[in-house]
Amino acid sequence: MPVGTQGSVKALSPRDLEEIGCQMILANTYHLYLRPGVEVIRDLGGLHRFMGWNGPILTDSGGYQVFSLGALRKITEEGARFQSHLDGSSHLLTPEKVVQIQEDLDSDISMVLDECIPHPSSREYVKASTARTVRWAERSLKARKKSAQALFGIIQGGMYEDLRAECARELTPIPFDGFAVGGLGVGEGEAALNSIGAFTAGLLPENRPRYLMGVGRPEDLIFAVRCGYDLFDCVLPTRNARTGTLFTSRGKINIKRAEFSTDPRPVDESCDCYCCRHFSRAYLRHLYQAGEILAAQLHTIHNVHFYHRLMDKFRQLIRENRAGEELDTVL
Amino acid sequence: MPVGTQGSVKALSPRDLEEIGCQMILANTYHLYLRPGVEVIRDLGGLHRFMGWNGPILTDSGGYQVFSLGALRKITEEGARFQSHLDGSSHLLTPEKVVQIQEDLDSDISMVLDECIPHPSSREYVKASTARTVRWAERSLKARKKSAQALFGIIQGGMYEDLRAECARELTPIPFDGFAVGGLGVGEGEAALNSIGAFTAGLLPENRPRYLMGVGRPEDLIFAVRCGYDLFDCVLPTRNARTGTLFTSRGKINIKRAEFSTDPRPVDESCDCYCCRHFSRAYLRHLYQAGEILAAQLHTIHNVHFYHRLMDKFRQLIRENRAGEELDTVL
Repeated sequence: MPVGTQGSVKALSPRDLEEIGCQMILANTYHLYLRPGVEVIRDLGGLHRFMGWNGPILTDSGGYQVFSLGALRKITEEGARFQSHLDGSSHLLTPEKVVQIQEDLDSDISMVLDECIPHPSSREYVKASTARTVRWAERSLKARKKSAQALFGIIQGGMYEDLRAECARELTPIPFDGFAVGGLGVGEGEAALNSIGAFTAGLLPENRPRYLMGVGRPEDLIFAVRCGYDLFDCVLPTRNARTGTLFTSRGKINIKRAEFSTDPRPVDESCDCYCCRHFSRAYLRHLYQAGEILAAQLHTIHNVHFYHRLMDKFRQLIRENRAGEELDTVL
Repeated sequence: MPVGTQGSVKALSPRDLEEIGCQMILANTYHLYLRPGVEVIRDLGGLHRFMGWNGPILTDSGGYQVFSLGALRKITEEGARFQSHLDGSSHLLTPEKVVQIQEDLDSDISMVLDECIPHPSSREYVKASTARTVRWAERSLKARKKSAQALFGIIQGGMYEDLRAECARELTPIPFDGFAVGGLGVGEGEAALNSIGAFTAGLLPENRPRYLMGVGRPEDLIFAVRCGYDLFDCVLPTRNARTGTLFTSRGKINIKRAEFSTDPRPVDESCDCYCCRHFSRAYLRHLYQAGEILAAQLHTIHNVHFYHRLMDKFRQLIRENRAGEELDTVL
């Protein structure tokens, strides 16, 4: 599931997404709240109609972007106060307001406001922040008016297993429609990501979707699926595409490299995306070097297709009870 | 026919072009000669395969770009010597070399090297330059090896009717596959464009394609078709698209304007392009303001579609002997 920060999946049209077989897209509440504004989207019939996307949409809570603002934001029990990165205007996001915004956007899955705790943070800070995230989650569910829109709770707790467990113990009895794990993929390194990711997955109910937020590389997804996660989002496939880094079944390549300047092969000989069916590495490198917009489009089609085919193959293996097989088999 | 300066029509994929019904695309010899280089494209099977475009391709001679380089180029009887805008390297384009390059690119229509005379220029300069363009045209035809590839001559002569007539008198007996009129749309204004354009059209054989180079606005095309021109190229629809200027049946709009921020209508209610079928002005304005690549794609699809539908309608009117009807009827 790619990230559509500004109301589009960067460089892709809805029909590109449909062709690839995207099942759901993510839209960033923070960005849409500031521009074009929630009222605009609501009055135009909601986010699906606004974006021309008929499939499911997940909206985040805006928390991740707000907490990334650093000095421009201040957290209190009430919510998160921040200054717009666009015009410096002052805003307050409360758990209740974040639910209301997402209801106005009319997404299919909404997320509670949480604090994405920076890494590293002291145990004391993580404990206090996580307790507040739990209180915010309770307020969020009370604020919900649209029962047809799913609302997911978010497990925090930093890199402390006992705080993750405490958070899950408090949140999982609440009737959220799914549970997400936040605060990973924030620079903690692969070992901590895997160990806390696996530990926290084991704390979540099996009968509701488990969503690992902001992760990640193909190898991270493979690990996480084996832990039991069902849902992911990450900028990696689209952002890498725009800088010329392309995923293949034999590892990443960077199309900028001179070795590709006369290479007649597609990016990945085992890929059947629009880009690989029609264009050579030599052509893609040329488009990239010439700064052509088409490079971003074709590269993004390929990378998003790659992620989706990886998940397709994995689903097939799971159906065949072979999900534990070697990475090489999966890729 | 949009311009594909760097080996792609900016922001469009070949399938976008096919859907719009583009009949031919133009590729710039100057740009492709410098990057990725003609040998690269030749060795990869020619420009059609390189770009993934199966329809006809017209290549220009590179002359227009070279003559735009100003102080970086020097014209002699031999040809045009210039320094690359990319790395300052020195190159010589002769009429013979330009034919060879286009044969290596394997386009369907190639153009002779000519001098696109700046406006204003003295009668003396225009006379000497045009005479040289005629000599270059004769050398070009002699240099041709691939008879299956069309080669067009180019009429110059600046804003002087007698020099245009003299050029046409010398070139039209030569068995070129078509004739182009160059040196218009270079700042001479609408009155001179129309008067010289109409005058020169009348000098060209009716049984071969007549190509008005580098023109233009929808109203220019309407005038030019009535003069007898068959073929056009212009950056206007694609360049305007990228700056948010969109053509409609009721005139141009700029999507940046605040009035569109909540406008639920498509760009043009009478347009059936992918952009107009799926997206509102409000959404397109949002994408543009947010700097999203998708804005360039959707706007370009719309503008190129607009130009093609204009020509479609005009062809229909010509078949019905109604080509002289009011502009409003045509648009």
